[in-house]
Amino acid sequence: VTLAAPEAPTVPALDFVFHPRAIAVAGASRREAMGFNGSMFVSALLEAGFDGPIFLIHPTVGALRGLKAYPRLTEIPDEVDYVISSVQAQFVPQLVEDCIAKGTVRVLHLFTAGFTETGHADRANMEQTVVARAVAAGIRVIGPNCMGLYAPSGRLAMATGQTMEAGPVAMLSQSGFNAQEVVRYGLPRGLRFSKVVSFGNGSDLKAADFFDYFADDPETRVITAYMEGIQDGPRLAGAIRRASATKPTVILKGGRTEAGSRAANSHTASLAGSSQVFDALCRQAGAIRVDSLEDLIDGAVAFQFIRHIAGPRIAFVGGGGGASVTGADALQAAGLELPDLLPDTAQQIAKITPIAGSSVSNPVDSSALFMDEAFEGTVRPCAEAANMDAIVFHMNFGGGAVARRYDVRKRQELIANTFGDLQRETGKPMVVAIRNPITPDSLEQTIQMQELLYHNGIASFASVERAARAIAMVLRRQKLLA
Amino acid sequence: VTLAAPEAPTVPALDFVFHPRAIAVAGASRREAMGFNGSMFVSALLEAGFDGPIFLIHPTVGALRGLKAYPRLTEIPDEVDYVISSVQAQFVPQLVEDCIAKGTVRVLHLFTAGFTETGHADRANMEQTVVARAVAAGIRVIGPNCMGLYAPSGRLAMATGQTMEAGPVAMLSQSGFNAQEVVRYGLPRGLRFSKVVSFGNGSDLKAADFFDYFADDPETRVITAYMEGIQDGPRLAGAIRRASATKPTVILKGGRTEAGSRAANSHTASLAGSSQVFDALCRQAGAIRVDSLEDLIDGAVAFQFIRHIAGPRIAFVGGGGGASVTGADALQAAGLELPDLLPDTAQQIAKITPIAGSSVSNPVDSSALFMDEAFEGTVRPCAEAANMDAIVFHMNFGGGAVARRYDVRKRQELIANTFGDLQRETGKPMVVAIRNPITPDSLEQTIQMQELLYHNGIASFASVERAARAIAMVLRRQKLLA
Repeated sequence: VTLAAPEAPTVPALDFVFHPRAIAVAGASRREAMGFNGSMFVSALLEAGFDGPIFLIHPTVGALRGLKAYPRLTEIPDEVDYVISSVQAQFVPQLVEDCIAKGTVRVLHLFTAGFTETGHADRANMEQTVVARAVAAGIRVIGPNCMGLYAPSGRLAMATGQTMEAGPVAMLSQSGFNAQEVVRYGLPRGLRFSKVVSFGNGSDLKAADFFDYFADDPETRVITAYMEGIQDGPRLAGAIRRASATKPTVILKGGRTEAGSRAANSHTASLAGSSQVFDALCRQAGAIRVDSLEDLIDGAVAFQFIRHIAGPRIAFVGGGGGASVTGADALQAAGLELPDLLPDTAQQIAKITPIAGSSVSNPVDSSALFMDEAFEGTVRPCAEAANMDAIVFHMNFGGGAVARRYDVRKRQELIANTFGDLQRETGKPMVVAIRNPITPDSLEQTIQMQELLYHNGIASFASVERAARAIAMVLRRQKLLA
Repeated sequence: VTLAAPEAPTVPALDFVFHPRAIAVAGASRREAMGFNGSMFVSALLEAGFDGPIFLIHPTVGALRGLKAYPRLTEIPDEVDYVISSVQAQFVPQLVEDCIAKGTVRVLHLFTAGFTETGHADRANMEQTVVARAVAAGIRVIGPNCMGLYAPSGRLAMATGQTMEAGPVAMLSQSGFNAQEVVRYGLPRGLRFSKVVSFGNGSDLKAADFFDYFADDPETRVITAYMEGIQDGPRLAGAIRRASATKPTVILKGGRTEAGSRAANSHTASLAGSSQVFDALCRQAGAIRVDSLEDLIDGAVAFQFIRHIAGPRIAFVGGGGGASVTGADALQAAGLELPDLLPDTAQQIAKITPIAGSSVSNPVDSSALFMDEAFEGTVRPCAEAANMDAIVFHMNFGGGAVARRYDVRKRQELIANTFGDLQRETGKPMVVAIRNPITPDSLEQTIQMQELLYHNGIASFASVERAARAIAMVLRRQKLLA
């Protein structure tokens, strides 16, 4: 018997975009880190440790921040395949000519704004002309009016503070702000990214291109998107369908209201299209449509950490009677269920639970959870119970007298390790909701806790309500695929 | 002409509950701050600076933490009008007998849990018996199973960290946890409280009593409530109606789902009643019903800071294209409107706004907002515009390169003082949304910013979405009263 050779991993067509070999930045300011200009990208790429050369294009100086500068792209002696433009819009036509003349440029990232989104016809014309000219010469354009790429495997970043530790989550975004927010808020929650692309007006490369790319990208397992406009509707619909068929796909569509739609037009020259049509498209494609950036991040966390959940039955555990009641409401309102504890589960927990101020039912609200030795004794029976598909545990730091009794680090490790073990042993998702910290100390503790949870493969959320909505997304996708 | 003497301010009947003269705490532990027992109340009252004597009841020691202790309440030589019980449930009957024998006790706060909420018939009987015995002797009971009072004018606190700076917001809560959360999260947002009462099972004093009291309380201008059960429905309905007729009233009802309802029963022995019936009651009474503690806090912030808003027309201002689009969506989804800028408004702003990367429409997304001199030049025309009823401004701290350009403190003061001035001059609410900080530094800056906003009378929220929902509550109440 001759076995077929394993198929070589396919490299998706746009892979070159995310793996440039030499970068030139036009428009870096002499004043380091003076805000919103090419210097940002220089800082980001240097911190990311981009492993090819970075050249600068500057009219007067010979070097900036240790990087060699040239007055024109065409004067750079090395091959350059990726150009970042932060010059003003009126200088872009010349830069495009230089890119073409250079002969080796494959991608032009136009951070430069001031084109169609201004609403001025002459500027819309200028955008169309320069992009058409570049594309005709075989150069792909990202933008204009965007932040470009964050891609750990290419050692690319669009801002400082973006880790080179890669993960399974991809994002395509018409807003650089929102792309950066998802990374900024996602990282402490344990989100790790394969590729993030901010593509602004999407004059050449657009949502459909990136959906296609992420669908084929072996580094990507979860796809998220922030879109403002519907460009090339039928092609986009097909791309979302293909992406969603193989990978969980979570989409936030800006411009779902008339006011938002006008804002989208001013922002990225986007025509928002009908929200109902887009809704139907997502539903048919099996993509999860969300209404806020918080939900987008939460969905990404859920899909990164929760590979599978057998059903909607949640054991809801934590201290605090009022929090138990409102949390139970939030879980059920999101479509989850809180079955009664089985007699055996209840017995095991009751043995170690004080009768006053605790409740051995579902939710489990027990002061035993605050005693080191009784913590696992309370949550293990819930995790092992035949009638539970997952645990949602709620907690916070800095909440008054009780918190001061503990060695915080020891307690953090106890919780993270116990849930890590239980998740591995039972295959059931363990999910932790940490209420928002409101002091610097408790924020530090929350960040530490989230990191420990991440290393144990545990999803964390900022409230039970948000955890509930995110778990419901995973269930919804499983149902759509079933 | 003889003018009638101004009416003396009425002192509501239950006022004595919130202004005790001497307190005895039964069940304080010898171990200071060792968690969930009478020591908490001792710490809280000492920090609050309660201005009468605090006695302890302790079987063996003569003094604890500088406070004189006696083996029995009846052995205290002074008059005591307020007793806090944190002894175990089986010792409560004797304590009640001692309260009666003492002759001066008017209020018994039963922190003690382990009564009806356990689901055991004998413990339910015990609760009924002891409370009936106390009430028959003229002693009012708060609880059992609750945290009692936070009341700055009485220098009472239920936990440490509760400021004695009073304000207009009252809260009644069946959950001590939720009462403390509202205070803990509310204080940095600028919420200030007249009275907060956690009354647990509500065996004697219950929601209706406190609605009645707050309706008449001259210190209270805004009423909030967290309830789990419907006790004495017709009386409660009347109390909510009376409260809401004179003061904005925001109610979170735990147990709106079947799972939450079961949890409420385990927590405070509450029978949740029909959520639909309660909804109808609130609607008829003109009370605002919310579904989460976040919304309750946000509603309180809105009603404390916004006395009046002329209509739903919002000028939405801030930096960040994506944030402008999703924020505009959130505002309109909450029922608010974003009218186009009047030509004159747009002209004034356009004069000082760079064309690239900014949008002079509504939302106003302008990099000029980050330039000190252009900040007021951008927001003032919006505040003064005849077609705008309020400004919502969005911002955050620690969000990348742009933030580093500024003297943060100077920028905080510029924003807070400018909006303070504009709110006073125009009478239109200025509202600030500060996205959640995720580093200790940016949390410090957020806390400082919230404090400056508070001192300028400006409401702040953690997101545009939450600001939108809160403003909508104010509009809803105005409509109900119109």
